[in-house]
Amino acid sequence: MKLPIGYTYAATYAGIRKQKKNDLALIVSNPPARAAAVFTRNMVQAAPVRLARKHLAASGGRVAAVLINAGNANCATRTGDRVALASCRAVGKALQTKTQHVFPASTGVIGVELDPHLVTEPIPNLARKLSESSFDDVANAILTTDTRVKIAWEEVRCESGAVQVAGMTKGSGMIQPNMATMLAFVMTDAVVKRADLGQMLRRGVARSFHSLTVDGDTSTNDTLLLLANGASKIKPRRKERGLLAEAVARVMESLAQQIAADGEGARKLVIVRTTGFRTNKEALRIARAVANSPLVKTAIAGSDPNWGRILAAAGYSGASFDPADIDIDLEQVPVCRKGLAADFNEDALKEKLNASEVHIDIVHRRKGKGEARFFTCDFTEGYIKINGSYRT
Amino acid sequence: MKLPIGYTYAATYAGIRKQKKNDLALIVSNPPARAAAVFTRNMVQAAPVRLARKHLAASGGRVAAVLINAGNANCATRTGDRVALASCRAVGKALQTKTQHVFPASTGVIGVELDPHLVTEPIPNLARKLSESSFDDVANAILTTDTRVKIAWEEVRCESGAVQVAGMTKGSGMIQPNMATMLAFVMTDAVVKRADLGQMLRRGVARSFHSLTVDGDTSTNDTLLLLANGASKIKPRRKERGLLAEAVARVMESLAQQIAADGEGARKLVIVRTTGFRTNKEALRIARAVANSPLVKTAIAGSDPNWGRILAAAGYSGASFDPADIDIDLEQVPVCRKGLAADFNEDALKEKLNASEVHIDIVHRRKGKGEARFFTCDFTEGYIKINGSYRT
Repeated sequence: MKLPIGYTYAATYAGIRKQKKNDLALIVSNPPARAAAVFTRNMVQAAPVRLARKHLAASGGRVAAVLINAGNANCATRTGDRVALASCRAVGKALQTKTQHVFPASTGVIGVELDPHLVTEPIPNLARKLSESSFDDVANAILTTDTRVKIAWEEVRCESGAVQVAGMTKGSGMIQPNMATMLAFVMTDAVVKRADLGQMLRRGVARSFHSLTVDGDTSTNDTLLLLANGASKIKPRRKERGLLAEAVARVMESLAQQIAADGEGARKLVIVRTTGFRTNKEALRIARAVANSPLVKTAIAGSDPNWGRILAAAGYSGASFDPADIDIDLEQVPVCRKGLAADFNEDALKEKLNASEVHIDIVHRRKGKGEARFFTCDFTEGYIKINGSYRT
Repeated sequence: MKLPIGYTYAATYAGIRKQKKNDLALIVSNPPARAAAVFTRNMVQAAPVRLARKHLAASGGRVAAVLINAGNANCATRTGDRVALASCRAVGKALQTKTQHVFPASTGVIGVELDPHLVTEPIPNLARKLSESSFDDVANAILTTDTRVKIAWEEVRCESGAVQVAGMTKGSGMIQPNMATMLAFVMTDAVVKRADLGQMLRRGVARSFHSLTVDGDTSTNDTLLLLANGASKIKPRRKERGLLAEAVARVMESLAQQIAADGEGARKLVIVRTTGFRTNKEALRIARAVANSPLVKTAIAGSDPNWGRILAAAGYSGASFDPADIDIDLEQVPVCRKGLAADFNEDALKEKLNASEVHIDIVHRRKGKGEARFFTCDFTEGYIKINGSYRT
């Protein structure tokens, strides 16, 4: 894995979470990067989400440092805004950069006050520890109930040299036990114009994080940040920009799939694909409804080729279609043709459904151009165990 | 329990389900009743749903008999339409009534052909067995994975005498393992005009079955039928019509609550109430999102007063509000005030949350007139166990 140049990383244990595991991390870009971000659409937004928006607006989309803490979402707290601001100021001071160039992100428990000193005091030390090789340390420090580190990387060869794209993410339920959840940071060292960066972000996110569900719950802290610092001095040409956008999208797609596969209690990554519908919007509606259906997800957990549930979920998705136009494949095996049962070997298919990655394909026979893909996971007793337990 | 007069009932085992338990039932109204019905909004609709619609339209809303089978949803099958029609014809012949006066309903597995002889052959015998006292037999015969019978009853005293309203329902997951699910039949012996009956149905359903979720899945067979046969000869006056409508709504509400309480794997009925919002629509959006949130439902299963999840679900409901205007009570205990943690005794509240009925109250402090109520259940490992198992 070759990392984009011009970025340094550091992580430490600040005592924010009880478990002694790094919980405070810094990503620094030198030179400061162009930045584009998307945030949760939840009406309830954590203080760092609000401040990050403000900083991006004030700086015209420039980020010199990203400060991330795990263990406390800094959401629905009395002192949230002050703590987020004090944290960014401390980073600004330590790195001699403007406060508005510091991008804050938090994940962890909601509704518990975050002691500002826990964050601000380790920052000078964190700044001293910054190193090009600590990418994995940061990817580890941002995790909460995740069972594994989630990173992805791509290289794009341009005529004038290679540029790198690397990303990390965390998230396991859309909201954890009450961890407020999805954070993702994607960095490149290519030279990218601001408008192009925004476009790359939107294109990537549609194919990845916006096509992902674990439990249909949307957290208060979701943040996806894309940085381009131009440190490689390589400015992709017109055609190469398409390749770069594709690489960014692939990194995001891989990160989103890793989240689904590590969904709370999940044993399987499930990829729902819809094709042939009238519009992409209709195709997406169906893919999302199927991916969110607890009945489909429990069936996959039990390796049960229960296509009736898939057809029924498509039916209530809000999309309009004639069931007689629908074909469904599970793991490339036809299970439904023209809305009716296909003849398949149930035992053989059950075997196939024991895989760690399961594909559901829903095809509209009218061959429209609308298509979509959605990532989810199977739904097991583990999910209930994780989420039904006391917070304490 | 005093039943409305003019209705007779019968149930038998027709061999449609493997388990030897009555699976075919008949409700007969003499004289034929005025009827109003609502059906699933799923794009995929079972053959009996389509035929029931047709019969109601052709008869101008008259029903002489309701034929119900459990064990097979007669949905997504090649022969579905023919089987449903043949079944209604057999009832029409046995009772010497028009086929279009027979209302069919099915529940059970999707995508498996239903042998028409299994249904038609026992019908003459079923017609001979009809009796006023077999209400419970029918309420039992229509169950699938339900763990208990669901019936409700109300009496309305009018100046000229008393009229009765009685109802039965079945349903446990919105779709069962792949049982296609909710059926409800509500009968009264009052004299009711057709327009009034439709209004009563809409008013009742909004407060009951449209405010109910077990898992967010909508089945292909959902049917709610309201019958008024006028056998009591009592025609409620203007004011009394309001009382009758209220009684019908209360019966439906009770049936809906019984479904939630018997949700697959459920140990608790959960009643989500939202008040003070701008409009009923906004209040309903929030109540529905909270009632559907797997994270809220698993928290209730664990008796965890996790108000952060409730606030977050309200936040992504699509309703627009300032979190600082939100108060949340759990079992009448304030857990959130102005969007922030209230000071409460967690251990004492956990005790309270062990009840079989749990109330979540979400109050908008601006005191708008919008309010709503939604019924759901807690979300336990039992749900996964029931739905993750093989169909066989």
